Amino acid sequence: MIAPAPHSPTRITLDTAALQENYKRLTAHVPASCQVAAVVKANAYGLGVEVAVPALEQAGARFFYVAHFSEALAVRAVTGCPIAVLGGLPQGAAADYKHHKIIPVLNSPEDIAACPADLPAIWHIDTGMNRLGLRTEDVATLASRAKSLPLLMMTHFASSDDAVSPFTAEQIRRFDACIAGLPKPFQLIPHSICNSSGVLRHPEAHRQQIRPGIALYGGNPTPEAANPMRPVVEITTKILQVRTGKAGETVGYNQTETLAADTQLATIGLGYADGFFRSGSGRAHLYWRGFPCKIMGRVSMDLITVAIGSLPPTCPPPQQGDWLEIIGPHQSVDHLGASLGTISYEVLTSLSHRAERIIGI
Amino acid sequence: MIAPAPHSPTRITLDTAALQENYKRLTAHVPASCQVAAVVKANAYGLGVEVAVPALEQAGARFFYVAHFSEALAVRAVTGCPIAVLGGLPQGAAADYKHHKIIPVLNSPEDIAACPADLPAIWHIDTGMNRLGLRTEDVATLASRAKSLPLLMMTHFASSDDAVSPFTAEQIRRFDACIAGLPKPFQLIPHSICNSSGVLRHPEAHRQQIRPGIALYGGNPTPEAANPMRPVVEITTKILQVRTGKAGETVGYNQTETLAADTQLATIGLGYADGFFRSGSGRAHLYWRGFPCKIMGRVSMDLITVAIGSLPPTCPPPQQGDWLEIIGPHQSVDHLGASLGTISYEVLTSLSHRAERIIGI
Repeated sequence: MIAPAPHSPTRITLDTAALQENYKRLTAHVPASCQVAAVVKANAYGLGVEVAVPALEQAGARFFYVAHFSEALAVRAVTGCPIAVLGGLPQGAAADYKHHKIIPVLNSPEDIAACPADLPAIWHIDTGMNRLGLRTEDVATLASRAKSLPLLMMTHFASSDDAVSPFTAEQIRRFDACIAGLPKPFQLIPHSICNSSGVLRHPEAHRQQIRPGIALYGGNPTPEAANPMRPVVEITTKILQVRTGKAGETVGYNQTETLAADTQLATIGLGYADGFFRSGSGRAHLYWRGFPCKIMGRVSMDLITVAIGSLPPTCPPPQQGDWLEIIGPHQSVDHLGASLGTISYEVLTSLSHRAERIIGI
Repeated sequence: MIAPAPHSPTRITLDTAALQENYKRLTAHVPASCQVAAVVKANAYGLGVEVAVPALEQAGARFFYVAHFSEALAVRAVTGCPIAVLGGLPQGAAADYKHHKIIPVLNSPEDIAACPADLPAIWHIDTGMNRLGLRTEDVATLASRAKSLPLLMMTHFASSDDAVSPFTAEQIRRFDACIAGLPKPFQLIPHSICNSSGVLRHPEAHRQQIRPGIALYGGNPTPEAANPMRPVVEITTKILQVRTGKAGETVGYNQTETLAADTQLATIGLGYADGFFRSGSGRAHLYWRGFPCKIMGRVSMDLITVAIGSLPPTCPPPQQGDWLEIIGPHQSVDHLGASLGTISYEVLTSLSHRAERIIGI
């Protein structure tokens, strides 16, 4: 996935030392008896599993989660550690899972039925997402008929990023009540419950394994407070052209922006095909030496135009060939996500496939 | 870019015969003396240049446009035809352009200065986008000092998709007025003006080359009327799990959807990391046998939950393993774009990198 992109106007820098530091910071929240698994689905949230997985393994990670079997194969190519597939066990896939030593997360009675006794697996109990997972009222019956014991019993939080929602505590209660109703051997199986926010907010749910994702990659797991994680990704983009738009002229597709005065404009070679969403049209910002430059008009497929004329007099305006900041010290991935009307996760997983990637350490 | 994705829950089918038919339909709009170039930037709008370019060449295309030099290299790997880079000529890149026979589109006086006399190039005159391109008032001076004649003089429409905007006619007028003021040899250079919508709406601007993009890939170039193009892309996704959500329960992250009654739910293995935008949360639809199934709660990174309980009695509900339609006969790429709050272009260029791709003919 890391391809050289000669003369690319966009650079993504991945700070693997920060990724490793984030792994260690999360590890410091849990007792030594608790395993810190790493969620590396969606190509390690867009960073590239071939970079992220070895870095995380070097930092101590010994268990990885992905969404799909094909992702598990990409991770298997770079690690011998256990890999679990959150998306379940597709019909006819059991032999391939076994061959590559991939662990299915069993989400439904059908998944459990399709899983051979000698394929190690995880049971996922749904405690309130209504998405994937076994309904709590079905688990006891399924357990009583089980061909073998799962490696882990897991559940997934719906609202742990929300500091005031009581729902996470309710999910933990439902999970524990469900487990307490199972046959004795099932009560001894280790638990995997916490996502990133859960790790920081719910130590009572750390149990035997945590599964952080977004916090590893620098997203803020406690949005109401300062980010305890280090940023991992920086994106900069080169100015292709600087021009003066005249008062009364319009900018971009469908003339959505009319210039009130003569305005210095810079156009960069990045657009929605690079994962910079069109929803940022006319409202998001790029940064030049720490000062915001507003997007003028619509984000196009490969180009964005920003205003560069309102900089303080002490700040020389940028020129063709200068680099603007998209994500970096002045604009966090969380901040950019908010200004695009979404969340850091969607920004990260949409990261450019056309950019030049630079692996920092 | 086409990688096998074993046991992938999502399939993208590319109908190369429809792509070729669309090329031929556009060709039928212009005289034989007009070249029909194909815009294949952003990896052929997400379809994959290694499939799209040979198919288009077989249909008659002999000139290709991309956004970046690195994209030009990917296209060069599959064709010997001329390839032009819309994003200009980066400093220090001229020798690489020459070596790979790539044509820069020169957008600024700086681009023109950086272009050696023996590197064939295109001049881009900005007639109202205020994005990239030479300002009309600068072109005569630049032409009088030019080291060599460009291959083509181009401009780009801002509002040609809008049936009632007078701005396209104004842009054509500005372009022609600019050319009329140039030294004689520049007045004889062929023109490249029309994008997809321009091809259908503005025959007076067909000139010597047209440059369709979105219409090749099945997007509607005349949104106020029935789509004259054939759909090229179908996306289907497999149900990972069917469940009954109980009245009063919530669905998905942050409990944004509460079930008014017991509801049959299906969860599919596709989410915003696959390019299905989070903006579709709670409002977009997937289709089962032609009937819409509304997305319940938030789109997650790898999963979406839809309601499947309101189907007519004659339609048996889908089961785990059945395939739902994302883009296909019942939901066009334009329709999905609108229901995600954006346009077909952004949907296409965000297409899944995790899906299994099937090349239909």
